Amino acid sequence: MVGIAVLGAGRIGKIHAANVAANPNARLIAVADPYASAAQALAGALGADAMTDCEAAIDRDDVDAIVIGTPTNTHIQLMMRAVRQGKAVLCEKPIDLDLLKSQAAAEEIESLKGRVMLAFNRRFETTFAEMRAAIDAGDIGEVRQVIISSRDPGLAPEDYIKHSGGIFRDMTIHDLDIGRWLLGEEPVQLTAIGSRLIDPAMMEKYDDYDTAMVQMQTASGKQCHINNCRQAVYGYDQRIEVFGSKGMLQMDNLRPTTIRRWSAEVTDAREPLLNFFLERYQQAYKSELDAFVGALVDGKPLPVTPNDGLQALRLAEAAVESVRTGRAVAL
Amino acid sequence: MVGIAVLGAGRIGKIHAANVAANPNARLIAVADPYASAAQALAGALGADAMTDCEAAIDRDDVDAIVIGTPTNTHIQLMMRAVRQGKAVLCEKPIDLDLLKSQAAAEEIESLKGRVMLAFNRRFETTFAEMRAAIDAGDIGEVRQVIISSRDPGLAPEDYIKHSGGIFRDMTIHDLDIGRWLLGEEPVQLTAIGSRLIDPAMMEKYDDYDTAMVQMQTASGKQCHINNCRQAVYGYDQRIEVFGSKGMLQMDNLRPTTIRRWSAEVTDAREPLLNFFLERYQQAYKSELDAFVGALVDGKPLPVTPNDGLQALRLAEAAVESVRTGRAVAL
Amino acid sequence: MVGIAVLGAGRIGKIHAANVAANPNARLIAVADPYASAAQALAGALGADAMTDCEAAIDRDDVDAIVIGTPTNTHIQLMMRAVRQGKAVLCEKPIDLDLLKSQAAAEEIESLKGRVMLAFNRRFETTFAEMRAAIDAGDIGEVRQVIISSRDPGLAPEDYIKHSGGIFRDMTIHDLDIGRWLLGEEPVQLTAIGSRLIDPAMMEKYDDYDTAMVQMQTASGKQCHINNCRQAVYGYDQRIEVFGSKGMLQMDNLRPTTIRRWSAEVTDAREPLLNFFLERYQQAYKSELDAFVGALVDGKPLPVTPNDGLQALRLAEAAVESVRTGRAVAL
Amino acid sequence: MVGIAVLGAGRIGKIHAANVAANPNARLIAVADPYASAAQALAGALGADAMTDCEAAIDRDDVDAIVIGTPTNTHIQLMMRAVRQGKAVLCEKPIDLDLLKSQAAAEEIESLKGRVMLAFNRRFETTFAEMRAAIDAGDIGEVRQVIISSRDPGLAPEDYIKHSGGIFRDMTIHDLDIGRWLLGEEPVQLTAIGSRLIDPAMMEKYDDYDTAMVQMQTASGKQCHINNCRQAVYGYDQRIEVFGSKGMLQMDNLRPTTIRRWSAEVTDAREPLLNFFLERYQQAYKSELDAFVGALVDGKPLPVTPNDGLQALRLAEAAVESVRTGRAVAL
Repeated sequence: MVGIAVLGAGRIGKIHAANVAANPNARLIAVADPYASAAQALAGALGADAMTDCEAAIDRDDVDAIVIGTPTNTHIQLMMRAVRQGKAVLCEKPIDLDLLKSQAAAEEIESLKGRVMLAFNRRFETTFAEMRAAIDAGDIGEVRQVIISSRDPGLAPEDYIKHSGGIFRDMTIHDLDIGRWLLGEEPVQLTAIGSRLIDPAMMEKYDDYDTAMVQMQTASGKQCHINNCRQAVYGYDQRIEVFGSKGMLQMDNLRPTTIRRWSAEVTDAREPLLNFFLERYQQAYKSELDAFVGALVDGKPLPVTPNDGLQALRLAEAAVESVRTGRAVAL
Repeated sequence: MVGIAVLGAGRIGKIHAANVAANPNARLIAVADPYASAAQALAGALGADAMTDCEAAIDRDDVDAIVIGTPTNTHIQLMMRAVRQGKAVLCEKPIDLDLLKSQAAAEEIESLKGRVMLAFNRRFETTFAEMRAAIDAGDIGEVRQVIISSRDPGLAPEDYIKHSGGIFRDMTIHDLDIGRWLLGEEPVQLTAIGSRLIDPAMMEKYDDYDTAMVQMQTASGKQCHINNCRQAVYGYDQRIEVFGSKGMLQMDNLRPTTIRRWSAEVTDAREPLLNFFLERYQQAYKSELDAFVGALVDGKPLPVTPNDGLQALRLAEAAVESVRTGRAVAL
Repeated sequence: MVGIAVLGAGRIGKIHAANVAANPNARLIAVADPYASAAQALAGALGADAMTDCEAAIDRDDVDAIVIGTPTNTHIQLMMRAVRQGKAVLCEKPIDLDLLKSQAAAEEIESLKGRVMLAFNRRFETTFAEMRAAIDAGDIGEVRQVIISSRDPGLAPEDYIKHSGGIFRDMTIHDLDIGRWLLGEEPVQLTAIGSRLIDPAMMEKYDDYDTAMVQMQTASGKQCHINNCRQAVYGYDQRIEVFGSKGMLQMDNLRPTTIRRWSAEVTDAREPLLNFFLERYQQAYKSELDAFVGALVDGKPLPVTPNDGLQALRLAEAAVESVRTGRAVAL
Repeated sequence: MVGIAVLGAGRIGKIHAANVAANPNARLIAVADPYASAAQALAGALGADAMTDCEAAIDRDDVDAIVIGTPTNTHIQLMMRAVRQGKAVLCEKPIDLDLLKSQAAAEEIESLKGRVMLAFNRRFETTFAEMRAAIDAGDIGEVRQVIISSRDPGLAPEDYIKHSGGIFRDMTIHDLDIGRWLLGEEPVQLTAIGSRLIDPAMMEKYDDYDTAMVQMQTASGKQCHINNCRQAVYGYDQRIEVFGSKGMLQMDNLRPTTIRRWSAEVTDAREPLLNFFLERYQQAYKSELDAFVGALVDGKPLPVTPNDGLQALRLAEAAVESVRTGRAVAL
């Protein structure tokens, strides 16, 4: 039985806490959040202790592992405190918005043989996982091209955009991780383009983009394309295509029902997509937490490492640079 | 080179005449229609002789075969005249609306070893033909159930309904033929239901139905369901499913383009279906004519026989009786 | 808070018990099953009392409602005991395999104003529910035809077939209920055909069928077709089409992932279907239990009544009679 | 009636000649090809004069327009001869593999007010045309991203590759044209990557690539991605997605039939795609020729100009440079 404290009682903390509570090999010891009422509401509903001091939660003897769902700028401090005490960590991405700080943290974790798992939850979604397994099984031969379409349902509010780190570090980073993971090799060259098509004034203000494309290539010549947009009227669009020497795999979106509608205007019409990531990746969050607990129980390596977070951030940085310079970036 | 006269210069005659003209092994000798202007327009456009006397067209020495696209009540007379002269016939279905007359004609054709092909054109449509071939190849094992959905885009005008012979003899008969053909065995029992849901007054007036279902079974237990409606707002609906011991085949509708539309209201939406049978079965009419000419040139048996027309009409009669009596009809 | 005892600790009891435990307005008081070890295992895992006497579980003061998941021949006795004590009941279908006994029970329940809900769980599946809601909203105008395809993944073992009551009372009954529910009117005529195509010897032995079709019609002329088979190699096939005057709704199957595979042999290929009803209707079982508890908490009528069970059984009886006599059955 | 000579009796010339013959407003005067037997076979079958001298065919008084389907290095000479005589030209792409020569030709055509149409036939395919029309109609609001997938069924033989001008000038050029056309604005920046994944030795030998991606952007920020591969085991893959502010349009591939196959291994599986461009764009070639003749008859501007050919070639050149330098290319 793994004793777990969830740090952060916001929307992501709520999901993790519920998944901890539902895992038969884990026990939710505490929920910690500086906002006492949020911590109490969540901890109370799940029969755990409510705390306002995250560090104190880490230090508890009955806490073997922590799940970090706090703001990004607190990640490193909390993560390293746990690592230094030999406790396992599941940390929301990114490690930090700053590449050098992230790198330093990753190095210290490695030197301490710390057990830290980065929460790239999509890897645990059933269809993503099945695609990776099908590639490993040789179903499509050698991977040649990975095409990732990833569009948000609606533009986030200004307050979110302001602190997001920009589209590449905040949104594209998930697709960069999936791209690396499906390519099965490190990209060596990357080009990105960014546009301001939805709210040019706000994007200008924060030196950000709302619409982007990334193109990258590995040393052996495998290629990956990513397209992003901060707003798609038809819902949260998440599709992937992996094209290989012996075939192709395509991942479609999820919708609430399987209904197809026919009328005088349309045939075969489906409904808009699941609205956003909490619904779309509900199962992924659960499987991710279960994989974390399972690896701890079995003493096996954690399935996503700080290095994965570092590499994704490095690619995001290259995308930022590529847009700024109008050049391809060698990695 | 097969010399062919097309009898009837209406919409179906036009299609047949154009297909004759395009067939490299056939020569369109004449188009005959009591309406001189219709005959002249069609014959002129295709470089054939225009005639107003169908019988005289049959009798011409340079005519080896005739294609009958005249009103149903003239079919037997024209067909038998050609048969007695040893000429081949491609005749629009049905032979006649009267089963006994049809039977007598079929018997005489057989005794004269006449070469007559009934125009059940759907059998020649690419997808229908491929389904039959896949069944023959054993792809789905033993056929267990055939499900046929067949709905017209809009209710025909009263003048058509009045002379149609009723939904079962006019519309369902195509599906009854396809059902027999895909089952690969003769049905031994049939039940039908008919409803008046679109224009009850008109249907009542002609003792007809606008919405129908048929259920039938062969001696070995293979089953077939047919559903029909005289009006589908989304277009001419033609779908088939053949379920077998090792798998299933499904035939989808055709649409003008492959576009899928996504908006705030719908995703994956396709356009309405091809409007009606002339568009939907355009290729089938051509392949049917080519099969007719091909069999004549090669001296091979014609691929659809008068007996096929007779059996389909027998099933249609049984459907009429089943609706009238509220009983299953043994065949 | 509704105190609930689950009677029966088999596979269906396990599902109900877990759903009771997960419902915030219900408390799982006891699990009762003559097999002590089964009761103990299930009750223990969910923190409830294990009992071997179902009647004693009903009689407990802290039990407000029972969920019956015991063998069919015990349903009426347990249900009526609870009703007589004023306790609410969610009972697996059917009430009983015997129509007269079921009718008597339904009448007594009505005279006692008993609160009994029949577990036609499919009505609570998201897509089914959305289809009914779309019809109610007028999205497809007047319903004309309902087409239900429902095929099991594999033939049940002989021991199951022997006690099943036959394909119509055991399997088709679900589709008959859905047919009635989507038609929105009572059928007045029904015809059925049954075949022995998978295991003729076993089917002969139990006077049963493995492949069946049903066709029925309401007084206003709405039509319904059902096709069933005890074995589909591609998985548990559950599809529905509702065709109306203004459009059509189609329900597709569920699959584990959204992957489409392309190779030299196939394109756009999806994986086999979810294997069977426990996986396919997992969400439906939960929503059904939640609807039961919700109605009790809100003091609203239960959403599926004993009369619904009775009507479905009546239709199943008519199907049996139709196959036996080869006739349409007036209802 | 437009008198037309078709220059070149190869596979593309055959298609054009048949389409000329079938067009009611055009007359096929001559087929010219240095290979006398090829010219004779084609001209004979369609009732036209066979010639071996292409220039003499252009010079004929009864020839109003020419269709050029000869090798690329003869395009400019033949085209300009016709233009100088005031005759209309439909010329297979590209004008020339050399950008400067192409530019000079385009300028001369403009100064002579020559009527030249470049054969970017895809623009005339029903679905492509409908997508452009839907964009024009405002169906998806402002275009944001265009995603083009375009993969050949199999690697062309060495002799073809050797003379092709490389993947970007030979294959991608079609997608670059479609990208420009759907974006509705000129790209101002382009990046390309090229890989040698299928036959590295042959690709190395000709300094060519078999797998490529292109990413481009217009001044207003609209984005376009193209992916190409010289070999896709599942057939000739031609898909497009246009994502806009109010929705999205997707174009699917064409297949020979609409059959979907279900088995123990797969469900919903479709067959491999139409093999290659002659089958896939059969209708497009016909509509293109009809549009050419129609514009001549109506005295309207030709729908694809030499400038379109020039711009596509300029983009292809930029792609070559981008791969060579590893940089984004400003246009």
